[in-house]
Amino acid sequence: MEFRGIFPALTTPFAADGEVSLTSLKENIARYNKTGLAGYVAIGSTGESVLLGQEEAEAVLAAVKETAAPGKLLIAGTGAESTAETIARTKRAAALGYQAALVKTPYYYKPVYRAENYIRHYRAVADASPIPVLLYSVPVFTGVTLETPGILALAEHPNIAGIKDSSGSIQRVGEVVAGAPSAFHVLTGGAAVLYPALMVGAKGAILALASALPEKLVKLYDLVIQGKHEQAKELQLALAGASQRILTENGIAGLKYAMDLRGYHGGAPRLPLLPLTEEKKKQIAALMVMQEGSDVRG
Amino acid sequence: MEFRGIFPALTTPFAADGEVSLTSLKENIARYNKTGLAGYVAIGSTGESVLLGQEEAEAVLAAVKETAAPGKLLIAGTGAESTAETIARTKRAAALGYQAALVKTPYYYKPVYRAENYIRHYRAVADASPIPVLLYSVPVFTGVTLETPGILALAEHPNIAGIKDSSGSIQRVGEVVAGAPSAFHVLTGGAAVLYPALMVGAKGAILALASALPEKLVKLYDLVIQGKHEQAKELQLALAGASQRILTENGIAGLKYAMDLRGYHGGAPRLPLLPLTEEKKKQIAALMVMQEGSDVRG
Amino acid sequence: MEFRGIFPALTTPFAADGEVSLTSLKENIARYNKTGLAGYVAIGSTGESVLLGQEEAEAVLAAVKETAAPGKLLIAGTGAESTAETIARTKRAAALGYQAALVKTPYYYKPVYRAENYIRHYRAVADASPIPVLLYSVPVFTGVTLETPGILALAEHPNIAGIKDSSGSIQRVGEVVAGAPSAFHVLTGGAAVLYPALMVGAKGAILALASALPEKLVKLYDLVIQGKHEQAKELQLALAGASQRILTENGIAGLKYAMDLRGYHGGAPRLPLLPLTEEKKKQIAALMVMQEGSDVRG
Amino acid sequence: MEFRGIFPALTTPFAADGEVSLTSLKENIARYNKTGLAGYVAIGSTGESVLLGQEEAEAVLAAVKETAAPGKLLIAGTGAESTAETIARTKRAAALGYQAALVKTPYYYKPVYRAENYIRHYRAVADASPIPVLLYSVPVFTGVTLETPGILALAEHPNIAGIKDSSGSIQRVGEVVAGAPSAFHVLTGGAAVLYPALMVGAKGAILALASALPEKLVKLYDLVIQGKHEQAKELQLALAGASQRILTENGIAGLKYAMDLRGYHGGAPRLPLLPLTEEKKKQIAALMVMQEGSDVRG
Repeated sequence: MEFRGIFPALTTPFAADGEVSLTSLKENIARYNKTGLAGYVAIGSTGESVLLGQEEAEAVLAAVKETAAPGKLLIAGTGAESTAETIARTKRAAALGYQAALVKTPYYYKPVYRAENYIRHYRAVADASPIPVLLYSVPVFTGVTLETPGILALAEHPNIAGIKDSSGSIQRVGEVVAGAPSAFHVLTGGAAVLYPALMVGAKGAILALASALPEKLVKLYDLVIQGKHEQAKELQLALAGASQRILTENGIAGLKYAMDLRGYHGGAPRLPLLPLTEEKKKQIAALMVMQEGSDVRG
Repeated sequence: MEFRGIFPALTTPFAADGEVSLTSLKENIARYNKTGLAGYVAIGSTGESVLLGQEEAEAVLAAVKETAAPGKLLIAGTGAESTAETIARTKRAAALGYQAALVKTPYYYKPVYRAENYIRHYRAVADASPIPVLLYSVPVFTGVTLETPGILALAEHPNIAGIKDSSGSIQRVGEVVAGAPSAFHVLTGGAAVLYPALMVGAKGAILALASALPEKLVKLYDLVIQGKHEQAKELQLALAGASQRILTENGIAGLKYAMDLRGYHGGAPRLPLLPLTEEKKKQIAALMVMQEGSDVRG
Repeated sequence: MEFRGIFPALTTPFAADGEVSLTSLKENIARYNKTGLAGYVAIGSTGESVLLGQEEAEAVLAAVKETAAPGKLLIAGTGAESTAETIARTKRAAALGYQAALVKTPYYYKPVYRAENYIRHYRAVADASPIPVLLYSVPVFTGVTLETPGILALAEHPNIAGIKDSSGSIQRVGEVVAGAPSAFHVLTGGAAVLYPALMVGAKGAILALASALPEKLVKLYDLVIQGKHEQAKELQLALAGASQRILTENGIAGLKYAMDLRGYHGGAPRLPLLPLTEEKKKQIAALMVMQEGSDVRG
Repeated sequence: MEFRGIFPALTTPFAADGEVSLTSLKENIARYNKTGLAGYVAIGSTGESVLLGQEEAEAVLAAVKETAAPGKLLIAGTGAESTAETIARTKRAAALGYQAALVKTPYYYKPVYRAENYIRHYRAVADASPIPVLLYSVPVFTGVTLETPGILALAEHPNIAGIKDSSGSIQRVGEVVAGAPSAFHVLTGGAAVLYPALMVGAKGAILALASALPEKLVKLYDLVIQGKHEQAKELQLALAGASQRILTENGIAGLKYAMDLRGYHGGAPRLPLLPLTEEKKKQIAALMVMQEGSDVRG
């Protein structure tokens, strides 16, 4: 299985009463189906996974599976704090037709977690999983960073297919690409470093920003594949600011509003996440106009 | 309602097959009932709450409630990432007979959580809760610290009864005691700073170490109440090392082994937590012998 | 030699032309001489030591020595990044009549400094120094924390007399008091935790705030010595806010302005430190009025 | 003035008696003169600048100036904690014939330093300096990161010519390249991210590793300029490990030993830096053999 190209980390739309809106979700997917996105990641950090109940999460997974166009690779976020629960979620995702599982690091007991805990955890999950496992290192949320030696040890496992590294470190991307078997795929989680990550050997990216600007991120990927470096650099530099202002500063609420502006179903996040202030909305609207000006559809 | 004295953060015992052992739990409680502990905290960080399913958590709550001696104040850990789920858990704990809820800070989306998110979250929980709410700041696990101004704002809410502060900062204990209404109770989460915390106005403590050494921590509390400062200091200094070596270095696995050594049902934690190595067990055994030598039963 | 009681970390006054004003410094000292302060610490972090040239630093040391009343114990800040320069400064301080040297941890190359670097550094300094050495751990400025095992190893050296710990950790004060020889003196650097630090065995404190409020901090020390715990607690709680607002939020500029308000020579700090804004001045003025209301002279 | 290509951050060799060895330094420079290095950076972090006295630092600057081949651009590290001292050092460097000054951020009083302090500091230095100023952000040593908005504000100053960014963040390189005037040069300080930094618009690099492997780093730069991306990527991946193992893990002592192995005058660093253990020496020796195998001279 190849993990190449751009995967959006999907948001989870909520209806006015706060319930998950599967209708809105399916409409988003229907529109994404027409883009060059390589597949979908459901129930990840961007999907407010930690704010959903188990039934909600499975309903989302089923809806995405039902709506996704053929050929779109389907990845489910299945990481939980406990190894047993992570395995259970992974098996359910496989049963629902998902082709890979994205498993974030456990993190609550980080003061006593050592490299060995992560190695034991991921090996147990990969041993039990019917589908390939992607490691997921997202220190901004978890406070845990998977370091190169641990990643390389896990990369030897036949059912661990790659990593989503959201640390933003291009050095680590290079180290892992240099040290891991060629079948191990590195995906970056940072839209602001997509171009340099691809240049040192990443195969693609799982990006929250791709839920609002899928064409643009696919275009950047294509430019790199085509060796059009000057254009790639220009597009990357334009996107870096958007990523910072929409996502780093405003998180899921910012992303969802950017989606609203582009005609997707964004909406408000769940408490304790807060909707954007009017002032923030104006800033993001201005930013999106600039992006449109630079041809947002790629 | 008064939150005074020493509350153990209970561990959750597992049977050989990895399932929660309610029998072992009840036997632990039966023995704690004979001590001077003021009550019990079930399903907190020490109870491996994030490694339990919902049914398991409720079975633990029910078992503790069933076994606790009359007069022991019962506190349930009910904090979840989402505000709605926290409210649901809090209501279930109240329905099970718990007298207060200990609510840790949400933390996953910490890059965008501001003071306002925490204030909105806790107010919504306290508004909806049938029982008093205790804030819970535990930066070692969450990466989030409730700072003094936010705590003081929340301390005005009639259904927010206090805070468990596990940051170890005695300065913050003092600031909150000085600034909050007198009905707001500060409890420390640090056995190594119990004495100084009480000296600046904390009313008691919720302590993992009290699951292994309840008599000793109750004795320290009593010495302070009696104004026996020299003895209190000596006992505190002796306990600081035990707390560091058992809990800070080894976490729940260390605590459970110390419990085993004292005849409680400790046992192994769940994956991805790992059991102690034999070397670590020897270190803790040596430490516990020293504690016994200094009269571990108080 | 005993390091007991309250030592102010002296500020360095500058004249309108930006030069060190020895006259103003001497006038400050003359006034401090009439208080119960145990001695003086010159050329520490609060003295803007890293913003002074070598000649300036020595002129300050000489002026303090010349003006200090008999019986006031004199401590010089002599820590530099290199071991050799630290030794040179310590010898010069001794030659100028100083009775002890306060030596902050080296910190620039912290990514490769291990416990062994600090042990080698401090032993070399202590071996070469004609006067007793005090360790100085001030992570807020250096990013380096001296941990208990390293402190205890160094506490065995016959010429290392104690430590100024500015980490704010009362747990560490207790651990060091419990583990070090009785001749090793722990001094806290945190005015907001003076009372609890003394309660677990600290012998005194070196405090920036004592440059503005010497009588009050001496009074708190005296209350503790006299066993007047309720009054001590009240005074501590009142002081914690002042320490936070003046020093933690505003640093040396805040302290110097508080000194101005009390009739000392405070003045502006050197660039890149900036003077207070008018708004900040008003906040500190309001705070100092409150302190006066609670009897600022003790 | 153009800052393009590879500049080594020079080490400072010491003789057996611990004194600076200008002879060894000159011999190193003579050899570097024959490479494609663009110039030299003397008295930077790698030059143990914080462990040198003022006279030593100036002797080093003079020796480098005297030995450097014509056309090699000369940059002096002149950053001190105080603005005034930084200006004084910068003027002395200019008088000695240096063409630019590399000015690290002040950092000791970081708890109260805000963006404004850095802007005031750098503007004052740039206003007073006879030579162009390069900002220097090196959080690993200082704990301070110059963020994009502050850098862009300073980039407008006519005498601030660029930045050495040693944070390792490729995102920031891109943001600054995108937002600053074209005359503002971004240089990376990370050998492990040289290739991606150049791809997003950095003009070159100031690298400690270039003191041991100048040919290889120049070759990587040249490959990028020539658009030979596949070869550039391969060389970058090979170098990333060397950078991590030599410098990140072992610091200046590791670099100096790698220099010894390549026939330069490396030697031991000054206390409190420690020489390498024999085990570490063997590891670095093995690593350098591998680098030789991959054609260390480029």
